[in-house]
Amino acid sequence: VAGGTITIGGMAKGAGMIHPDMATMLAVLTTDAAIEAALLQALLTTAVNQSFNRISVDGDTSTNDTVLLLANGASGVSLTGANDLAAFADALNYLCLWLAHQIVRDGEGATKFVEILVTGAASEAEATAVGRTIATSPLVKTALAGSDPNWGRILAAAGRAGVALAQERLSLWVEADSASLQLIQRGLPTKYQETEAAALFAQPEFCLRLDLGQGTAVAKIWTCDLSHDYVTINADYRT
Amino acid sequence: VAGGTITIGGMAKGAGMIHPDMATMLAVLTTDAAIEAALLQALLTTAVNQSFNRISVDGDTSTNDTVLLLANGASGVSLTGANDLAAFADALNYLCLWLAHQIVRDGEGATKFVEILVTGAASEAEATAVGRTIATSPLVKTALAGSDPNWGRILAAAGRAGVALAQERLSLWVEADSASLQLIQRGLPTKYQETEAAALFAQPEFCLRLDLGQGTAVAKIWTCDLSHDYVTINADYRT
Repeated sequence: VAGGTITIGGMAKGAGMIHPDMATMLAVLTTDAAIEAALLQALLTTAVNQSFNRISVDGDTSTNDTVLLLANGASGVSLTGANDLAAFADALNYLCLWLAHQIVRDGEGATKFVEILVTGAASEAEATAVGRTIATSPLVKTALAGSDPNWGRILAAAGRAGVALAQERLSLWVEADSASLQLIQRGLPTKYQETEAAALFAQPEFCLRLDLGQGTAVAKIWTCDLSHDYVTINADYRT
Repeated sequence: VAGGTITIGGMAKGAGMIHPDMATMLAVLTTDAAIEAALLQALLTTAVNQSFNRISVDGDTSTNDTVLLLANGASGVSLTGANDLAAFADALNYLCLWLAHQIVRDGEGATKFVEILVTGAASEAEATAVGRTIATSPLVKTALAGSDPNWGRILAAAGRAGVALAQERLSLWVEADSASLQLIQRGLPTKYQETEAAALFAQPEFCLRLDLGQGTAVAKIWTCDLSHDYVTINADYRT
């Protein structure tokens, strides 16, 4: 920033019961910037809403969610002006998102990291509701575990999210690296190759992009698969 | 009944996505009684609300729920008077409950049939909400698969059901056949033997009885465990 270099550090612990907002999650962020507590809180809230509050591992919940952001001013560098604050916010957002993704990657039994990208929604709340429902559906998550491009389960989950949807407006893609394959166009399956779709679903990381065809709002949710190891971990684990 | 013998038959098909009310379930009930359609509908609604609408397999849903009750009057026996109707209702309720339980027993990957009995609630709606949340928690259901008397997960699920609960009023028992073991008394673990609790959780059928200590309302929900076979079936299955 203008006055010198500041550092933000962070660590987080998951990795089940990450629902609906954080839960069974502890994250501690630190910075040596000199910044007021109220401003820090506002920046943290924004960062958390786009990261820790948009992940799910198993749809179960806990009472223990905590994200702390501590600033001690040890750098002697104050944040002054909009540019400094924007730079700090960017770094904080990046760090929170990176940690949130790590929690999903480290989810109990997780073998896949999947972004649910919902576009074309009438509002962000509706996009989020659809994304969360897909991200927590046991049938979607077992299909992810099996590398099964089961678009029926994805659309069925979207349909029960409490959002009015028109099937003939829905389009769905699976995207990994630079590959993008459309599975559904306006409510009907495309003539995609099953082997090509299965190959994308077999990637360790990919994105399911669902366009609702109703507006311009967008939301992203990150989730993992529901694997045999999830059952092993939670059937054998005893507090 | 007074006028002679009537018969009710039934068949049902599950066995995943049985949530929240029936879903991916088809049941057809038949009777040779002579009875009006409107009356039949009222009796069926009552029976379904206590049976098919109180089961869960994986918490996922579907659009295809159907229960049909057909009467053709072929017996030539009419239902007349309160006694006849009560006898018919009893038989219909029994049949619906039996079929609903079979669906849970036949749930995808199910190795256990578990009754969640919630007592001492302020209202039936609250008792049902608590029971449903316990019955669909992945962590409770994996604990059931592992024969793990993990009362912490059961109480945690109850606590997120959207019902105001007081921990110090909660009591929990596990019951199988004629055995009853109290795990929690007014919010605190009893001095039960872990081996004894685990033995009850290892039964193929048992009841988790949770008393909320807030009133007199009661609800029952039936569920199954979340096992490795559930993952196998749904990761490998492809429509």
